[in-house]
Amino acid sequence: MTEKTIPVASIQLPEPTLRRLPWYLAYLSTLKKTDTEYISTTRIAEALDVDPSQIAKDLSFLGIRGKTRIGYQVDALESKLRDFLGFGREHNAIMVGVGSLGAALIADSGLQRYGLNIVAGVDINPSLTGTQINGVEIYPTDRLPELVERLNAVIGIIAVPVESAQEASDRLAEAGIKAIWNFTPSRIRVPEGVVISNTSIYSHLAVMYNRLSLKIQQ
Amino acid sequence: MTEKTIPVASIQLPEPTLRRLPWYLAYLSTLKKTDTEYISTTRIAEALDVDPSQIAKDLSFLGIRGKTRIGYQVDALESKLRDFLGFGREHNAIMVGVGSLGAALIADSGLQRYGLNIVAGVDINPSLTGTQINGVEIYPTDRLPELVERLNAVIGIIAVPVESAQEASDRLAEAGIKAIWNFTPSRIRVPEGVVISNTSIYSHLAVMYNRLSLKIQQ
Repeated sequence: MTEKTIPVASIQLPEPTLRRLPWYLAYLSTLKKTDTEYISTTRIAEALDVDPSQIAKDLSFLGIRGKTRIGYQVDALESKLRDFLGFGREHNAIMVGVGSLGAALIADSGLQRYGLNIVAGVDINPSLTGTQINGVEIYPTDRLPELVERLNAVIGIIAVPVESAQEASDRLAEAGIKAIWNFTPSRIRVPEGVVISNTSIYSHLAVMYNRLSLKIQQ
Repeated sequence: MTEKTIPVASIQLPEPTLRRLPWYLAYLSTLKKTDTEYISTTRIAEALDVDPSQIAKDLSFLGIRGKTRIGYQVDALESKLRDFLGFGREHNAIMVGVGSLGAALIADSGLQRYGLNIVAGVDINPSLTGTQINGVEIYPTDRLPELVERLNAVIGIIAVPVESAQEASDRLAEAGIKAIWNFTPSRIRVPEGVVISNTSIYSHLAVMYNRLSLKIQQ
């Protein structure tokens, strides 16, 4: 049986910092492959186009300080960042809605490397019941409460059609899920105490299309 | 042969507005199914938890004004929004990196409903050459310039391993791509004139894990 594991981070970081930390981690992972031992904020800053003092400040939130004139030890910083971000721990998740996007996310084994362990999927389509994607079994939606408990799921991922997003969220919250990752373009409300994270792929497309059309007109 | 089509939006909207517009569209699509004819900003505001005056302001950017005491005509507003956001037009795109995430995105036919038409994939893995996902053919990476031209691709989607992200971006820019949608957690630089949009799925995970661990400790 999989154990419920959660990150141990105990400070609420500003969201911009939390969004930059994965950049640093990505860069350090690249450096590790080149056998670089130490890295300065100046070099990270150049590579990522972020202000060096911002980097030092972001890392100091984690209690990490570089050595004068030497910088940070690459291996240590990389593992500390991975640990802090929760990517090294398993978070069990249930996918709600196994259509095109839901199935694609289950199939993306990359998420597992970032600590997201999708343990089951649910869908209202009865023909999906009992099928598997990437070894993940699909159940009818009414099995949700039992699945959350039995599989120690803490995260619910919503990839249903937009008009069913709120209902899916309500069901997940009732089933005792602690965090909801919403992939629909719909805005949903969650009870207090439940974490909500929106990844609105289509909003990003809208921003890109708008910028693109302006560039092309120039 | 597919024609190169681009959105006609001619004003640069503030990014927060552009990110909210898809919420309104999603809500209107839901309303359409219930045969609602008119909708007020007050009701949109309640449903989406956005300030009513903000909604009126966002919509006025598009030259849309509601009627006093009646509000907006649902069908007209929905189609105007879809049109403005570029979701009704085809944007040809090439996927760079057909690993787990890249293949998943190609398989997600939902993107097509939002105007993103993935016309080809490229990958350095020779065993993928000539294979198809969802009818989309995969080519060797060095075919990129020819593919961009022949298939009228304007968008390049990057789903390669993090250490290859910058190189993929450089190749796309050289091949004449106009916008890059970066799905890697890596920060990349693009030449002036190229639009960059980052969808850092893993950053969203990091934010969610952090919030989750704090909630659980409370």
